[in-house]
Amino acid sequence: MTKLGIGLLGVGEMGKRHAENLRRLVPEARLVAVADVAAERARQVAAELEIEHSFGSLEDMLARKDIQAIVIATPDKFHARCIREAAAAGKDILCEKPLATNLVDAQAALDAVAKASVRLQIGFMRRYDPAYVAAMKRIEAGEIGEPVVFKSVGRDKDVPPLAAYQSNVNGMLFYNNTIHDFDLARWLVQDEVAEVQAYTTVAIRPEIAKYNDVVAGVVNLRYVRGAIGNIESYVQAIYGYDVRTEVVGSRGSVFVGSVEQIPAAFLSVNGRTQPLADHFLTRFADAYVAEARDFVHNMLNDYPVRVSGEDGLKALAIAVAAENSHLQKRPCQIALHTDAGTIAVTYSAN
Amino acid sequence: MTKLGIGLLGVGEMGKRHAENLRRLVPEARLVAVADVAAERARQVAAELEIEHSFGSLEDMLARKDIQAIVIATPDKFHARCIREAAAAGKDILCEKPLATNLVDAQAALDAVAKASVRLQIGFMRRYDPAYVAAMKRIEAGEIGEPVVFKSVGRDKDVPPLAAYQSNVNGMLFYNNTIHDFDLARWLVQDEVAEVQAYTTVAIRPEIAKYNDVVAGVVNLRYVRGAIGNIESYVQAIYGYDVRTEVVGSRGSVFVGSVEQIPAAFLSVNGRTQPLADHFLTRFADAYVAEARDFVHNMLNDYPVRVSGEDGLKALAIAVAAENSHLQKRPCQIALHTDAGTIAVTYSAN
Amino acid sequence: MTKLGIGLLGVGEMGKRHAENLRRLVPEARLVAVADVAAERARQVAAELEIEHSFGSLEDMLARKDIQAIVIATPDKFHARCIREAAAAGKDILCEKPLATNLVDAQAALDAVAKASVRLQIGFMRRYDPAYVAAMKRIEAGEIGEPVVFKSVGRDKDVPPLAAYQSNVNGMLFYNNTIHDFDLARWLVQDEVAEVQAYTTVAIRPEIAKYNDVVAGVVNLRYVRGAIGNIESYVQAIYGYDVRTEVVGSRGSVFVGSVEQIPAAFLSVNGRTQPLADHFLTRFADAYVAEARDFVHNMLNDYPVRVSGEDGLKALAIAVAAENSHLQKRPCQIALHTDAGTIAVTYSAN
Amino acid sequence: MTKLGIGLLGVGEMGKRHAENLRRLVPEARLVAVADVAAERARQVAAELEIEHSFGSLEDMLARKDIQAIVIATPDKFHARCIREAAAAGKDILCEKPLATNLVDAQAALDAVAKASVRLQIGFMRRYDPAYVAAMKRIEAGEIGEPVVFKSVGRDKDVPPLAAYQSNVNGMLFYNNTIHDFDLARWLVQDEVAEVQAYTTVAIRPEIAKYNDVVAGVVNLRYVRGAIGNIESYVQAIYGYDVRTEVVGSRGSVFVGSVEQIPAAFLSVNGRTQPLADHFLTRFADAYVAEARDFVHNMLNDYPVRVSGEDGLKALAIAVAAENSHLQKRPCQIALHTDAGTIAVTYSAN
Repeated sequence: MTKLGIGLLGVGEMGKRHAENLRRLVPEARLVAVADVAAERARQVAAELEIEHSFGSLEDMLARKDIQAIVIATPDKFHARCIREAAAAGKDILCEKPLATNLVDAQAALDAVAKASVRLQIGFMRRYDPAYVAAMKRIEAGEIGEPVVFKSVGRDKDVPPLAAYQSNVNGMLFYNNTIHDFDLARWLVQDEVAEVQAYTTVAIRPEIAKYNDVVAGVVNLRYVRGAIGNIESYVQAIYGYDVRTEVVGSRGSVFVGSVEQIPAAFLSVNGRTQPLADHFLTRFADAYVAEARDFVHNMLNDYPVRVSGEDGLKALAIAVAAENSHLQKRPCQIALHTDAGTIAVTYSAN
Repeated sequence: MTKLGIGLLGVGEMGKRHAENLRRLVPEARLVAVADVAAERARQVAAELEIEHSFGSLEDMLARKDIQAIVIATPDKFHARCIREAAAAGKDILCEKPLATNLVDAQAALDAVAKASVRLQIGFMRRYDPAYVAAMKRIEAGEIGEPVVFKSVGRDKDVPPLAAYQSNVNGMLFYNNTIHDFDLARWLVQDEVAEVQAYTTVAIRPEIAKYNDVVAGVVNLRYVRGAIGNIESYVQAIYGYDVRTEVVGSRGSVFVGSVEQIPAAFLSVNGRTQPLADHFLTRFADAYVAEARDFVHNMLNDYPVRVSGEDGLKALAIAVAAENSHLQKRPCQIALHTDAGTIAVTYSAN
Repeated sequence: MTKLGIGLLGVGEMGKRHAENLRRLVPEARLVAVADVAAERARQVAAELEIEHSFGSLEDMLARKDIQAIVIATPDKFHARCIREAAAAGKDILCEKPLATNLVDAQAALDAVAKASVRLQIGFMRRYDPAYVAAMKRIEAGEIGEPVVFKSVGRDKDVPPLAAYQSNVNGMLFYNNTIHDFDLARWLVQDEVAEVQAYTTVAIRPEIAKYNDVVAGVVNLRYVRGAIGNIESYVQAIYGYDVRTEVVGSRGSVFVGSVEQIPAAFLSVNGRTQPLADHFLTRFADAYVAEARDFVHNMLNDYPVRVSGEDGLKALAIAVAAENSHLQKRPCQIALHTDAGTIAVTYSAN
Repeated sequence: MTKLGIGLLGVGEMGKRHAENLRRLVPEARLVAVADVAAERARQVAAELEIEHSFGSLEDMLARKDIQAIVIATPDKFHARCIREAAAAGKDILCEKPLATNLVDAQAALDAVAKASVRLQIGFMRRYDPAYVAAMKRIEAGEIGEPVVFKSVGRDKDVPPLAAYQSNVNGMLFYNNTIHDFDLARWLVQDEVAEVQAYTTVAIRPEIAKYNDVVAGVVNLRYVRGAIGNIESYVQAIYGYDVRTEVVGSRGSVFVGSVEQIPAAFLSVNGRTQPLADHFLTRFADAYVAEARDFVHNMLNDYPVRVSGEDGLKALAIAVAAENSHLQKRPCQIALHTDAGTIAVTYSAN
């Protein structure tokens, strides 16, 4: 069997999961090497998963000829630069979301990809989740009629340590969390978001305001063709990892989401109690596998990627507009310019 | 048993339900008379429910000395005037929501109530629904910690006939539907809404735009003490009557809502299917009874009402601000002025 | 409006609910009187509900000419005798389940009803519950195909006081609780039960064994046309009132049942918690009203009853067979004999 | 890392899943070879999963010194013989359920295992399912009090082809399907089943009666210490793969089960529809992985197995008693004799 040689950059929680999946559950992949600036950690992961090579830098890994594709799972702010380097080395790329943490970096990354004629997929893995896939099929089959309202909720379970805000390696709430919902907003409704308005809160944790982050946000959406929507994000829900999305249409509605961890219930004088999901790696375990298999299969067969750099750019543009609505206290518009083979996004407060 | 003599104004769908409840399920009430501008319809309802008297005008009904309280269930735009008349006649009042369809009328109604020293309750019956009551108890007990995000969804089942928009007796979406959620937003979070921003859509039914109404709306909320929220309203959900509310806090979340009509499920090759609720008179049947009982009991015992005219005014102010955000395409602020024994509300676009 | 004059016998918990329903929610009924051996209690209920007359004996109440029908809500062991007396007085009858606590009494009651040419309905109110009605419609429409397995669960919430077993006014578990499921077993499957086998337990409360009762039972069913089934009953489930029924067919399944008290959920670190139903008068509140309305309507219009004395007899026969299986430690068969205008049931251990 | 050398016998649907799990998801395992009487199929699976060796017989595979353990996934009726052969070759064994299809073969297999001093685990993988594990923890923590009623339902989705009954390689319903519930009945209640009574049906498919099999069965249970129970099995539920288990106790209840395939719902005028699970390899995917990991880890570390041959024998004894109750039309008792280091089971009709 011909296999795709892959190098993985970043062996944190997310990166390690990608390594496990590629090593064990993607028959068409050969995970040649892992790299991390923490070289010792890369070495340990390589040993544990029986991966042949490990590196302390992306540069060294890119030098290998038997690597055709790079999976990027670094902190968010390094995504764009790593994409440029990998593209320059002629590698195809699967990069975790977001594409970048600002539009300039994002555009530069896409330019590099275009110039090098490599392919880039952004890691919006929810598009591979069986429940989201089933919902999308219903929408595409016209079962809900015309989309009228898009709704999404994303809540993380644990209170992030203050250090996470201080180091700020992953951008604020909108860039690291809500970005998933911004992508779903486009994908499921099959329309572009024209304008957003955001309220945010730090009331239960005012000390993070100085790091330009927030505890929760609600983002209203207005679509080009007239639909509307709202996305809620909350990083410290305490009770569980809770993701729900609904597309309400002129003839019906599709709903994705469940906070149940396992199909078990406990009946007592306190009522019926069910354990709740607690982590995205549990909830979306299958999606990450399907994403990796699809990417690898498409690279081997010279097919286009399913989630493009343009998708990454457009989701990012919504995040930027949401942040600006938060900062400027007014709605922000999003404009897309397709020009000279690439796409550009600008936003403006009206 | 001492009973409260009651006159009911308006015998449409809502008014007739009030009549049935007062006649049969509120032992402390004596429903003396019903009145409606459609005098013949009032007569029929009186005959059917064995109510002694019926009238073709409020004025005639108010003349009866054995009536101590009036229940108002007319079209929305007559609420404020009827309150003024009933107050002037010295009657206590239970008026369906909204208090009025604009702030000037609302203030005038409250002034009349204050001047006549009568009591006024606004029909936000959800505050009497067992599920909302249970949720509120959890919140008051501190079980969810500090409220962070308020969420509410209200969807009606059937496509309103165009005539409903043309006659426009009940005000636009925000005044007749979302008003329930605006009240819940205040009650459950125990804080005031400082600012709102609304997107609306008529994309699937553009012909109603000329009647200044919309098919759906999403309203973002910012609270005085820092919480945030969002309310979605959709008048033609087709699939069912679907009301859901959630208050997400620093330690947990309370969720109210169910679209299941009956506790039955059908398992077939198409999956598991459950019938959905279809009407507010079904979903909130118990709440209307509890509301009537509580009002009657409080009137008989000279207790204050549980849902005050001030509550009606403040919910209305949010609706006004939401409409203005929709019209002016920007967030609108709400300011409360307590002055000379009464309360005034103003909004402003920032 | 012509109304049916009714006398109610027995003003305990169940009887009082019937009185409230007949008085307030059944427009075609006129509840003329209530009677109870506890004459003072009958008087109090009459005063509270504004019923004109109260009596200390059935005999006195039967003497009233303006009473056309009797509702019987006494302890179970008096049902059959009261039916005979009411029939002899020429009154139509709605009697709470079970028809009797043994087959001889049951047959005598039916004979008296036939001789007097009055009508008798047995209070299997679940047949009027909206969820059971919806399930039955699906079955009759052929949506589940041919019934293969009937399943039912009935659990009560509270531990019965020992005095309830000592006085034993309501027969053992199978006669007072499981009898509902025995009726459903016939009604929903539209076939007769040919044989049953029962295991019972008193392990967690051995002291009730001497009163010939049990804490829980599982009853296996074999139908005449080949379907099978099982019913579980448990009188002290502690956590809630929990009724579930399922008919599994060759093409699908219908399921009735929910232990949720209200449509509310609470999300915390302990998981998702929902309050549970706690009482049959709550779960089946609507069913009792529908039952009373249907009975009254049919009596006024000389229609046959919907749930006949024969239905009561056949459900009782299953209960008798289940008790005998428990006592004789073997399966018991049920044989139905239709003879000379009446129906007889015998059981035998094979 | 030291790894356990494993040979897998039988590469049908179940065996192939074991091969995939051992190859990819059990780091401590080295799947040395697969064997199948269909040698070509074994070769193909070996090629697909990159397993070094394949064989056309168990004997050849057992000759390999680098294989320490055998996983048996043949048709049921070969289980016992394969266990004997593997044991004689000194290999530890993980054998799919059931241990055997009759008690004589079962006892002979256990004797061979004891004589060879190897270890044997029976593949009751539900004991590894996260939901069942969570339920068991609640029971062991005393949260439901004393078990009173055990309930279990097992329904398969598709109509088995007639050929499956004709070849009869897997024994009747009780041996191949209900056996899982018989094991759960012992494990979750932590008591032995003393007696069973079974009704079965072939009414919707009479042609399978001649193969001594049934379409559905209900089995009543009586436990040694007084609890009771019921298990329903149905092989052609059409609508989905539906497994539910409940242990009802003196203080509460634990429930395991869900027929939802994915966390998605579709709301339309037909109601709310949810896709249902369709296969045990989907529902219990995680359980099979956990089972394999636990077995391999215990073998490598000389720990005892978690699910013993004795567990296999006792579950089988219940199946035998259920079949005999079905054949002899009466309850059957189960007696366990521990003697001379081994355990024997007899059953008798009372």
